[in-house]
Amino acid sequence: MTDFTLTADERIDQLYANDIKIIQSPSVFSFSLDAVLLAHFAAPPLKSHAKIVDLCAGNGAVGLFLTAKTKAQIIEIELQERLAQMAQRSVYLNQLEDQVAVLNIDLNDTFKYLNKDTYDVVTCNPPYFSDLPKSKKNPNQYLAIARHEITVTLEETLQVTSGLLKTRGKTYFVHRPERLFEITELMKKHRLAPKKIQLVYPKAGREANMVLIEAIKDGRTGGVRFLPPITVYDENDEYLPFIKEVLYGKKD
Amino acid sequence: MTDFTLTADERIDQLYANDIKIIQSPSVFSFSLDAVLLAHFAAPPLKSHAKIVDLCAGNGAVGLFLTAKTKAQIIEIELQERLAQMAQRSVYLNQLEDQVAVLNIDLNDTFKYLNKDTYDVVTCNPPYFSDLPKSKKNPNQYLAIARHEITVTLEETLQVTSGLLKTRGKTYFVHRPERLFEITELMKKHRLAPKKIQLVYPKAGREANMVLIEAIKDGRTGGVRFLPPITVYDENDEYLPFIKEVLYGKKD
Repeated sequence: MTDFTLTADERIDQLYANDIKIIQSPSVFSFSLDAVLLAHFAAPPLKSHAKIVDLCAGNGAVGLFLTAKTKAQIIEIELQERLAQMAQRSVYLNQLEDQVAVLNIDLNDTFKYLNKDTYDVVTCNPPYFSDLPKSKKNPNQYLAIARHEITVTLEETLQVTSGLLKTRGKTYFVHRPERLFEITELMKKHRLAPKKIQLVYPKAGREANMVLIEAIKDGRTGGVRFLPPITVYDENDEYLPFIKEVLYGKKD
Repeated sequence: MTDFTLTADERIDQLYANDIKIIQSPSVFSFSLDAVLLAHFAAPPLKSHAKIVDLCAGNGAVGLFLTAKTKAQIIEIELQERLAQMAQRSVYLNQLEDQVAVLNIDLNDTFKYLNKDTYDVVTCNPPYFSDLPKSKKNPNQYLAIARHEITVTLEETLQVTSGLLKTRGKTYFVHRPERLFEITELMKKHRLAPKKIQLVYPKAGREANMVLIEAIKDGRTGGVRFLPPITVYDENDEYLPFIKEVLYGKKD
């Protein structure tokens, strides 16, 4: 079956750098630079018998982008039915149904469906805000659930991540820098050792507004590396060359 | 008394940005960019009745540099007699004996000499390496003690820092990024909440090799800010403009 009919508020966006098409909807969910940079930051094994889970998958962008880097099996877990359906249709749209599966389940039910200690890589772009949304801010329930810890907490995402991973399996998270030490503390509690951190700055002279984190299950603590910073925009609000390359591919 | 006679292996270096002269000795201790950036990063109160302690003071560079930013009283604590004497002679050399005092004591004896919960600011450029020095690497005991946790551990520096500070007092540490999460975890244990982090990269495309940390005693956890990254050298190994300004002052 290859049903990828769009509903009225949907459009198809393409990530030119890897030719992946994603069904987007501004009114329920659109992937952002965060998902693109998370997929770029992740270093999954190439082999087809490797196994990857993407948690809080939204419209499936991270898992779909990863198919440009690996032949591994990818399972996308998304609670919201409307978003999971969008992800599934994007899988069909890209003819990736042999590699990518979408599970429309609550992350906290993961181990009813998936085995523990089995996965090589877990990626996650979780809700960033621990507070509940102000009614004025987010009257839209789809976006509220994607952005605020309403149905899942940061600790639950890390607990499930740790449960899924094999020993020495790797996880990649994107989050807000103001919560970095909360994240690393919870990682430690759940047997995840941070190994690489990359900070993302909107432009020169501004504070970081995104952080990418690689951690290893049962890895030795200490020895974390801070990769070169990423800056997104130049002084004219144009993407800097690194971001252009990630979005549009190399110009040769 | 104004004895600042140099011994055979000593020289006087000047930080032109603030006209401070420091007695240096390559064979026992020389301040480095770390001390300069720590003093630049610190934001002490200006007022003369404020009180500052610099731990692991070495030849006194951080405390001396801070005199360009504050009228506060500054106490430098240094265990090694030879280094403390150099620091004291630099105090005389800059005619700062009314503002800066050098205490040649073991940091772990601090509270025999200084009151608890009394200081507005504590700065510290501690030994970076938790392992003992390899005999081949550091046959020089002065440098070994300054670089390795032989006479003081990271946790001891944070414990004494926390003990010295008033509630809402601020501390500024410089350290190696690979130990950042160990530092923030120990800070939390000792009632210090990290508030600002600034990473220092040797040049574009390289990993960070220094981190500056501001923490507040009994501050609320969370909400840490990552300031714009500092890059030291350009591709020709020349200092970039920000570093030139910190070292040599504004060119106007």
